[in-house]
Amino acid sequence: MERYCIGVDVGGTSVKIGFFKETGELLDKWEIKTRTENGGEAILPDIAASIKGKLAEKKIGREAVIGIGIGVPGPINKEGVVPHTANLGWGYKEVTRELTELTGISARGGNDANVAALGEMWKGGAEGCKNVILLTLGTGVGGGIIVDGKIVVGAHGAAGEVGHAHVDENISGHCGCGNKGCLEQVASATGIVKLAKEELAASDKPSLLREGEVSAKAVFDALKEGDALAERIVERFGKYLGKTVAVFTVVVDPEVVVIGGGVSKAGPVLLEYIQKYYVNCCYKATRNVRFALATLGNDAGIYGCAKLVLDEKGL
Amino acid sequence: MERYCIGVDVGGTSVKIGFFKETGELLDKWEIKTRTENGGEAILPDIAASIKGKLAEKKIGREAVIGIGIGVPGPINKEGVVPHTANLGWGYKEVTRELTELTGISARGGNDANVAALGEMWKGGAEGCKNVILLTLGTGVGGGIIVDGKIVVGAHGAAGEVGHAHVDENISGHCGCGNKGCLEQVASATGIVKLAKEELAASDKPSLLREGEVSAKAVFDALKEGDALAERIVERFGKYLGKTVAVFTVVVDPEVVVIGGGVSKAGPVLLEYIQKYYVNCCYKATRNVRFALATLGNDAGIYGCAKLVLDEKGL
Repeated sequence: MERYCIGVDVGGTSVKIGFFKETGELLDKWEIKTRTENGGEAILPDIAASIKGKLAEKKIGREAVIGIGIGVPGPINKEGVVPHTANLGWGYKEVTRELTELTGISARGGNDANVAALGEMWKGGAEGCKNVILLTLGTGVGGGIIVDGKIVVGAHGAAGEVGHAHVDENISGHCGCGNKGCLEQVASATGIVKLAKEELAASDKPSLLREGEVSAKAVFDALKEGDALAERIVERFGKYLGKTVAVFTVVVDPEVVVIGGGVSKAGPVLLEYIQKYYVNCCYKATRNVRFALATLGNDAGIYGCAKLVLDEKGL
Repeated sequence: MERYCIGVDVGGTSVKIGFFKETGELLDKWEIKTRTENGGEAILPDIAASIKGKLAEKKIGREAVIGIGIGVPGPINKEGVVPHTANLGWGYKEVTRELTELTGISARGGNDANVAALGEMWKGGAEGCKNVILLTLGTGVGGGIIVDGKIVVGAHGAAGEVGHAHVDENISGHCGCGNKGCLEQVASATGIVKLAKEELAASDKPSLLREGEVSAKAVFDALKEGDALAERIVERFGKYLGKTVAVFTVVVDPEVVVIGGGVSKAGPVLLEYIQKYYVNCCYKATRNVRFALATLGNDAGIYGCAKLVLDEKGL
């Protein structure tokens, strides 16, 4: 009998669902809306209904489904319990127990950034590796740590919260977490805009960035056009990241550091500016750590959720 | 039948050997000289002879010994192979295979700093925890990382090399590793002396440290006497450590950070100065990470080596 697994990546606005063969081949994927109203009470029933509908459509019995992996934007413990997830409206919620009851299929949960790291290890930029640091540079900076092929969850579910690494007390403003000087303040899309505005205000030099709206994409586009101010911005960004990643790598010594998220669309040039500073301050034994771009994009989460299920069953 | 395990901690000048019940009770410990001459060819035979002698003395057959764990000062892979260990004289060496052949008892190997972390988790400052960061502040700064009860080795055997975390490019001089700005340059016993000399040279203020030789111990002793200059030195030391440990904890999110090594003899005051800066820049979810002093001293290695053996056998 052909067997399948299902990956569910729950975000604040939509839920991505992927239908996989147990070999990792993605057969189908689709999205549904995340209905966060009324304490997010409809989220899990909506997911269950969508999965059941898909199984009916494909004429696949639920006994052919090995399991469902579900990624959530916040901490979730090994028992699949979420203490509180602000942007889904959830308070305390026994996510995997509820999803299992609703679908009749066993479910396993993980934090969304962590499962994305697992996905990139399984079928993405870190394929073939067992020790991985993923940094997701988007609106914020998230991350996931894989050691010996397994997600590092941590004692408080906070392992891999690399965006809140303290990098420089002189960074202006405050991070969303309340601290001052977090990596997220200078390495996220928002952080790059902040650095750009500082550089634009600090000089009168001409720059492509003085035309139109400043965005992380505009900065990297200008860099590719040889814009000197854009280069200065990306140097600062690369220095912060390179130096901080060099601290991460003495902790877990990965084979590969994968950079994902919207900012990573800038391409290989992004890695160049990070590595340039990384090699100058990394410990010699970690000098050959590979830097790679994430390749699964928004699908990393569903891949990682499917892998969670396979790992649990020892497949 | 009563069963035993043996922990062997190989250092550059002496080898510590511990004889344990499988419950973790240390029955006997002793030291032999590390003979590093002739490529360190006598080291493993000396260890084997010493173990055999002890078994004969105690009238214990080797079938009652579950295994031997051996810790070495350098990287060692899962197959128990050391590529090169400068301060033992070894080139490529199949440590666990040789030791097994010499003793007739199965052997397992680990890096000395990593097994010390395992020892502290098993019977020391981190007892009862599964996720631990150990920092050993001695002549240098070493460390070990434990995730879910297991040592993190890393892709190049460099996980836990926390002394070479890059903390500040403005630190004067170079680290033994060749880099500039490593934690070891400011948080080791040697680093504290360096900070002390800088502070003594930078002011004319009276200080107890102007009398006699400056050492890490003298700095902490002076601090306890209310010496203002000593306080300034310990503040700098605590700030470097607190800020850097806050980066480590977003990577692996441990239950406890254990501080060992000679510098930790300063006692709880050391933790106060680290935690004071830690809580100011750590990620909120890791704010309650406990800080503890190591309690096993020089025995941490033999305890960890014994635990390696028990873990391998699933005991």
